[in-house]
Amino acid sequence: MCRWLAYSGSPIYLEEGVLAPEHSLIDQSLHARQGATATNGDGFGIGWYGKRDVPGVFKDIRPAWNDSNLHALARQIESHLFFAHIRAATGTEIQRTNCHPFQYRNWLFVHNGTVREFDKLRRDLTLAVRPELFTEIKGTTDSEILFYLALTFGMADDVAGGVARMAGFVEDVGRRHGVEHPLQMTLGISDGERLYGVRYSSENRTRTLYYTESIDAIRDIAPTAHKFSSDARAVVSEPLTDLEEVWIPLEESSFLTVHDGEVDVAGFAPELP
Amino acid sequence: MCRWLAYSGSPIYLEEGVLAPEHSLIDQSLHARQGATATNGDGFGIGWYGKRDVPGVFKDIRPAWNDSNLHALARQIESHLFFAHIRAATGTEIQRTNCHPFQYRNWLFVHNGTVREFDKLRRDLTLAVRPELFTEIKGTTDSEILFYLALTFGMADDVAGGVARMAGFVEDVGRRHGVEHPLQMTLGISDGERLYGVRYSSENRTRTLYYTESIDAIRDIAPTAHKFSSDARAVVSEPLTDLEEVWIPLEESSFLTVHDGEVDVAGFAPELP
Amino acid sequence: MCRWLAYSGSPIYLEEGVLAPEHSLIDQSLHARQGATATNGDGFGIGWYGKRDVPGVFKDIRPAWNDSNLHALARQIESHLFFAHIRAATGTEIQRTNCHPFQYRNWLFVHNGTVREFDKLRRDLTLAVRPELFTEIKGTTDSEILFYLALTFGMADDVAGGVARMAGFVEDVGRRHGVEHPLQMTLGISDGERLYGVRYSSENRTRTLYYTESIDAIRDIAPTAHKFSSDARAVVSEPLTDLEEVWIPLEESSFLTVHDGEVDVAGFAPELP
Amino acid sequence: MCRWLAYSGSPIYLEEGVLAPEHSLIDQSLHARQGATATNGDGFGIGWYGKRDVPGVFKDIRPAWNDSNLHALARQIESHLFFAHIRAATGTEIQRTNCHPFQYRNWLFVHNGTVREFDKLRRDLTLAVRPELFTEIKGTTDSEILFYLALTFGMADDVAGGVARMAGFVEDVGRRHGVEHPLQMTLGISDGERLYGVRYSSENRTRTLYYTESIDAIRDIAPTAHKFSSDARAVVSEPLTDLEEVWIPLEESSFLTVHDGEVDVAGFAPELP
Repeated sequence: MCRWLAYSGSPIYLEEGVLAPEHSLIDQSLHARQGATATNGDGFGIGWYGKRDVPGVFKDIRPAWNDSNLHALARQIESHLFFAHIRAATGTEIQRTNCHPFQYRNWLFVHNGTVREFDKLRRDLTLAVRPELFTEIKGTTDSEILFYLALTFGMADDVAGGVARMAGFVEDVGRRHGVEHPLQMTLGISDGERLYGVRYSSENRTRTLYYTESIDAIRDIAPTAHKFSSDARAVVSEPLTDLEEVWIPLEESSFLTVHDGEVDVAGFAPELP
Repeated sequence: MCRWLAYSGSPIYLEEGVLAPEHSLIDQSLHARQGATATNGDGFGIGWYGKRDVPGVFKDIRPAWNDSNLHALARQIESHLFFAHIRAATGTEIQRTNCHPFQYRNWLFVHNGTVREFDKLRRDLTLAVRPELFTEIKGTTDSEILFYLALTFGMADDVAGGVARMAGFVEDVGRRHGVEHPLQMTLGISDGERLYGVRYSSENRTRTLYYTESIDAIRDIAPTAHKFSSDARAVVSEPLTDLEEVWIPLEESSFLTVHDGEVDVAGFAPELP
Repeated sequence: MCRWLAYSGSPIYLEEGVLAPEHSLIDQSLHARQGATATNGDGFGIGWYGKRDVPGVFKDIRPAWNDSNLHALARQIESHLFFAHIRAATGTEIQRTNCHPFQYRNWLFVHNGTVREFDKLRRDLTLAVRPELFTEIKGTTDSEILFYLALTFGMADDVAGGVARMAGFVEDVGRRHGVEHPLQMTLGISDGERLYGVRYSSENRTRTLYYTESIDAIRDIAPTAHKFSSDARAVVSEPLTDLEEVWIPLEESSFLTVHDGEVDVAGFAPELP
Repeated sequence: MCRWLAYSGSPIYLEEGVLAPEHSLIDQSLHARQGATATNGDGFGIGWYGKRDVPGVFKDIRPAWNDSNLHALARQIESHLFFAHIRAATGTEIQRTNCHPFQYRNWLFVHNGTVREFDKLRRDLTLAVRPELFTEIKGTTDSEILFYLALTFGMADDVAGGVARMAGFVEDVGRRHGVEHPLQMTLGISDGERLYGVRYSSENRTRTLYYTESIDAIRDIAPTAHKFSSDARAVVSEPLTDLEEVWIPLEESSFLTVHDGEVDVAGFAPELP
């Protein structure tokens, strides 16, 4: 299990989301309150869109709470659209290439959850990745394979469709190998313009995902940032503050799109192959 | 706060103490039950005596629970006298040189606790270290300074006396700087022959320390090791098993010596300068 | 390109091979004299057989020359059969799982060389790994794939045959993708009893590999170890000393077996599928 | 020995100085041409001034040539005044806190060189650091002590004076301990407004330092950056390109100030206590 957050809106320093809030990601790395594991100390990553075509990514295998580089960078880097992720490994190696976000060209991708009995399914899932994308696989996590499968199934042209076909494919491979509930996932995805969130699991009991619909919640995240534009939005594994009314739980089997401050929630269902 | 354990007896693989027990140090790194902090993820270290004059030391800044090297080494290295330590940093940098055990010649030293307001006292404490030892200081922790102060005050010839004079000096420097309760410590020390444990704090409320007096406790730690000699003893920050009767709490202000299976407990009091 | 050494004989401390010689592996990590790259600073690993069924492995991503753990461990660990490897990455990530030796059960495997245009061939080579072995792949190097291909093709029962079929398969996949000289390798392999060395490349211009046939060379490696039995042998990427007469170059397309001090050299040719 | 570069001028991406040039710092980390050591693989650091009061600092212990984070960050971070440093350790531990630049409030400091027989001088030099600054010392290098000594001796109000008194103090302590030529240094210093360079050694044979006086050199460093203002200047351990005419060697015993594109060179001499 892991924890992640995403921000979309006027540029803010990453520290506003990552270090400052009451239940910041740093705080969650030591004692998450809603996750399957309390400690998320198996590495972290941030991914952010700036002025360049390709987003920046910074990952390390230390716990987020004790990394001096993360603290220094979060105070310097401003972004209008970014992800932060803390990892609790579920069996795969602790190495940078297994930390989120995963990046391919202009795409960023974070995952909280698991592909159950991944050891059994890994080979079939990996082989389904398109050959041009296969060489981009740098780590050994289920999460990275989900990313490249979604790209294989057309995510670059149709995010909801690509993710639905990826989920359907995993369900199918899982069942063929006798895995009852193969997929558990909350996803955060971006192409640099839109921010997408997905909440889905085979067993219909998915890890939590919350979003904000108004500036008020963001002001709580970053109380010192008065300049916030009214289009600022956040998507998070668990609320960053105790103000319950601003954090809206995303329903099971939902697909969320954030663009220019507009939040759209649609249903999500796997497309079987 | 940190957690540590020490073993003295017939040679066993380090895994018997570090990986195998019910509440192994690995388990404690994720959720200690009696420590001031639940997560001890800021590095770890093992130190062991083998056939050579100088003990081996292996330290890293990863959490102990996810270090593949620690697991592999603990399965290969056998020792009759060893320490393992997991760190929860209290303000100083996460770096190998700040991990325990500290080693100087044939000496090993681990510490759980803190020098309160170390920032205030650091300079005076550091300057008191004997010049020939000063150049051995490699990190920036209070713990390492306690080690070199104890050596400065004669620990190599008289362990109890050196530690008492070190503690007295810290009390004195602390009070001169207006720090009410400067010292909080459980210590594990060895010269390669004897194993020493110390429990002391200025406020007389020291972190726990337990020891075993018979082979039964050790058999619980390492149930598969039938070959254990009857002189095997352990000293630990918190019990490794739920069998309460075998883990004897060391009293406040005590000094413990283990040699050839014999356990001696004496009173401990700082010697003021 | 990388550098490696292997030792077989009476137990010695790893430092005798890794740290002590004139042109030790540490020295080669800073300035190799015969390699394709002078600096081999992209991680290192040691693998050794002790008393347990499974060999010990210790790897890290730091340069070997500055790792305090490696120095401390090499002074403590004794072994009758061990490998040491320093890495110069050729395009794949610097992470522990990409460091050699690779280990599977009682097997250890080191590689110096490359699969040319591995990006092109990676998918076909990976897919040929037997499903039960596929889940053991932890990194992303060509070397690790060669190891699991050799196991797939029967190395566990017939080392020379498994490696020959692996090499033939790589040649075949390479040619089908239009890669002129796909394979360049010196290999070190052991099951814990015998030590094997292979020198082969598609273009018949393989990186150097040397071995010793008598105790004299080993005495040069470890001049202080008078106790050396007469069956001590070494296999190395480049000589550890300037005494040219004791380091015998292994011929192109050769397969070397060391057992109980006996050295057997046979021809080696890929078996095409 | 180490290598470093500094840039002052219109904001550029750090990659223009760190990754892109013909003899970039990355290239120098593998094979420096003018340094005392060819390989500078014992960690690196970048420090840059952005919009905030305190500069950003990013350091790691990996070789610069293989750090994916450094590459990603150098492509995202823009700055009008920055340092980059690659380290070749001369006896002190490989840890982040020993990497340059050192930072205190708005100050950044890099050093190439050494305090000779630092083990002998370390205690006296360390004790001379003002108590309020003493607690800021995080590592164990001679370089960091030079930084805090210069601050102790008034660098914050008078850079040339503070550095001269620091150098004089080191000379004095060195001679009292019988060290013939205690100080060898090129320094890069900034308060966020001005960029300072110093070249000095006791023996009058200091490591090289070069600077540029016109935009032409900078255009060579960053050929794609047509927007460069005419005030862009660089200070480097060794030229980044082969265009010898643009890289002006700083004379022995000199003190360089860069401000708004103006370069001022003055003499430098230690002020003895």
